[in-house]
Amino acid sequence: MEHNIVTISRQYGSGGRLIGAKLAELLNIPFYDKELINLAAKSSPIHANFFEHAEMKGTGSFMYPFHPGVPFDLPLNDKVFLAQFAVIREIASQGPCVIVGRCADDVLKERDDLLKVFIFADMEVRKKRAISEYGDVPEKIEQKIITLDKKRANYYQHYTQAKWGSAKNYHLCIDSGCIGIDGAVEAIRAAYLSKGD
Amino acid sequence: MEHNIVTISRQYGSGGRLIGAKLAELLNIPFYDKELINLAAKSSPIHANFFEHAEMKGTGSFMYPFHPGVPFDLPLNDKVFLAQFAVIREIASQGPCVIVGRCADDVLKERDDLLKVFIFADMEVRKKRAISEYGDVPEKIEQKIITLDKKRANYYQHYTQAKWGSAKNYHLCIDSGCIGIDGAVEAIRAAYLSKGD
Repeated sequence: MEHNIVTISRQYGSGGRLIGAKLAELLNIPFYDKELINLAAKSSPIHANFFEHAEMKGTGSFMYPFHPGVPFDLPLNDKVFLAQFAVIREIASQGPCVIVGRCADDVLKERDDLLKVFIFADMEVRKKRAISEYGDVPEKIEQKIITLDKKRANYYQHYTQAKWGSAKNYHLCIDSGCIGIDGAVEAIRAAYLSKGD
Repeated sequence: MEHNIVTISRQYGSGGRLIGAKLAELLNIPFYDKELINLAAKSSPIHANFFEHAEMKGTGSFMYPFHPGVPFDLPLNDKVFLAQFAVIREIASQGPCVIVGRCADDVLKERDDLLKVFIFADMEVRKKRAISEYGDVPEKIEQKIITLDKKRANYYQHYTQAKWGSAKNYHLCIDSGCIGIDGAVEAIRAAYLSKGD
């Protein structure tokens, strides 16, 4: 079958966001990461700041004062997720694109033109990238990665009831430490352009 | 880093063997599957018939009468594995190649030019392929697939202490049902030709 939408889930430090951006550029299709958050923020009464940190915060939910148009009986994180859910579906309906994070793979799982990708790498590779590319502090990076992995896994499991990083949840899982950023981009591109059997 | 050896683990009915064969042809490098068994058989006093069925039989081990040159205190399946182990290392030492099954990914795990691939697909896709390509009986295919998955998983876990099909054990996991045989070949080729970062 033809692929139109690529979703990328990724471990912190694996280069998944960069891979997504390069892939979108190569395929000449839109790329959504924080752009997605901003879009969601614009159409929601909840402040953008909460959206930006939703995935990192995990699922420690808390109640938020009533705002017009927002269900007041849901924890804030769930409201954020519902708003993102709507935005992701809207974006995907507009045509081919690459979406990083935000459980987009699960949100769009009913589409048969979806290519679901997971990017991971060894701890040493991720530490190196986080320090050199993201400016993380060497002394604290391993703990940060462990914490973020756990939070992303919890976030994913909470909203999808599936296991983050389990091969069977994706169409393509790539070790970016072994294959490299450009190699990963090329591998996803090859899969994206394939029509299946 | 440069890749020289591709190992392919696969679910029954996923087309993993065909993908490996097509990849080897495209890259113009040798392909080993039953050829590997034959090579092992030639250099071992254990009969070829046992080699051919080693992976399917799982790990239900039993003692085998003493043969010259074979440690007589090991169960037969372990002797078979040790002989295959030696042959896989010998094959890989001769240059680039594609090896399907036989825990080759684990046998060669110390090599830094290894590309470890896992091919899987949904049950419905595998049933369809097994019936149309392998001539399996429609009424019995689902149970056969479940049984073979279990045996391959047990075989892999017994000899490698790792979990068969878990994304982190491989560099590339591909859903051949979504991406197709040719798409999978192209994706692996792209990863193989990448030099990493």
